[in-house]
Amino acid sequence: MLNIVLYAWATPNSRRVTIMLEELGVPYRIHPINIRAGEQFEPPMSTLNPFGKVPVLTWSECEETRVLTESGAILVALAERYTRLLPSEDGPRDAVLQWLMVGLTALAPATGQAHHWRSLAMERCDVAIDHAVTAVRRVYDLLEEHLGRQAFLAGDYSIADIAAYPWIERCEWAGLVLHEYPSIERWHGEISKRDAVRRGMAQPAGATLD
Amino acid sequence: MLNIVLYAWATPNSRRVTIMLEELGVPYRIHPINIRAGEQFEPPMSTLNPFGKVPVLTWSECEETRVLTESGAILVALAERYTRLLPSEDGPRDAVLQWLMVGLTALAPATGQAHHWRSLAMERCDVAIDHAVTAVRRVYDLLEEHLGRQAFLAGDYSIADIAAYPWIERCEWAGLVLHEYPSIERWHGEISKRDAVRRGMAQPAGATLD
Ligand SMILES: N[C@@H](CCC(=O)N[C@@H](CS)C(=O)NCC(=O)O)C(=O)O
Ligand SMILES: N[C@@H](CCC(=O)N[C@@H](CS)C(=O)NCC(=O)O)C(=O)O
Repeated sequence: MLNIVLYAWATPNSRRVTIMLEELGVPYRIHPINIRAGEQFEPPMSTLNPFGKVPVLTWSECEETRVLTESGAILVALAERYTRLLPSEDGPRDAVLQWLMVGLTALAPATGQAHHWRSLAMERCDVAIDHAVTAVRRVYDLLEEHLGRQAFLAGDYSIADIAAYPWIERCEWAGLVLHEYPSIERWHGEISKRDAVRRGMAQPAGATLD
Repeated sequence: MLNIVLYAWATPNSRRVTIMLEELGVPYRIHPINIRAGEQFEPPMSTLNPFGKVPVLTWSECEETRVLTESGAILVALAERYTRLLPSEDGPRDAVLQWLMVGLTALAPATGQAHHWRSLAMERCDVAIDHAVTAVRRVYDLLEEHLGRQAFLAGDYSIADIAAYPWIERCEWAGLVLHEYPSIERWHGEISKRDAVRRGMAQPAGATLD
């Protein structure tokens, strides 16, 4: 029997995985980890992921047990397991992996930095805010131009879209409004309509970052 | 006939790919892109990668042409093409992808931020330096603990090590010295001995970030 437990909180990286699981329609249970309360450093998280980051996914099926950390790795592992949302032919696969990486290495870290400097930091630092927001804008400009020419980030809806979406949903962390980016807004609206995305974004039930 | 051109500069992300190509022993040509001179925004880069980031790899073989951007995606694509340095069985593949992601999404962005605030920024901002260096230290602490228990990041030498190595080589960007991290230093020394790594780290010939 398949038993999936996702250790997660109301964060964009966690929601990449809840969306993915909902898209795949596989049953899973959520174990909430309140990162504002430091639960990522306590058991069971401290043994599951010494880095202290959510999401973590544990997977057990018959004799096989897997502990998966890093949202990007979890998306790839699930996509490969179910042969969904990540094509296997060179060209389409290249595109998905490249746009996945833009989400993982540019959009997410830059938006996270902007959020830190605009809202979380104890000490205000205008140059740091400016630096972070400029980096986020550069990614948005890229996405706006790209999504003006294609419906999704890479061919059909894929893990590249799933990795980017929960971060675009948090554009206010960088002080941005989607209204200024009509193609991103169109893409965001399209994805927001998906039932799996709605369900995924509502997890973990009752969790909040405030 | 196979024809690979790598658009690159003397940067850690570019060197992930030169090391990979050297490890695979496939012939390639380098087209240097001086990012300090803004060449990433001029042709041919502006058409190859509108994001304006190196590395970019163009691949042509018979009828097939591929333009690959994002160092992480390039590592995965090459590993899969040559079935080297990225296992295909679940457990070992999970481990490589997870540690690859730690290199791509934590080590590299944090070290890049530290470099920016310590050396490149026009305006000094102590809280920003402190924030960035703390994030880098958190990754080093994780790697130190992990590499105290294993020879490489994930089983055998893999693309996870290749993604992390050129950034660890630049530890001074975060003001860190490897001497304080004996297990990372041991790992770094081991990898530095590889001929392919020496050759890859020397590319692009004559390029410098100063
Ligand atoms: N690269 C990781 C990043 C995960 C991450 O940054 N998680 C944050 C929440 S979005 C976290 O757990 N923060 C708690 C902490 O850093 O202590 C991934 O993509 O999964
Ligand atoms: N996520 C990208 C990042 C590439 C990147 O940041 N490249 C830097 C040099 S290490 C660059 O081209 N900078 C020039 C610029 O941003 O204009 C990757 O892993 O390839």
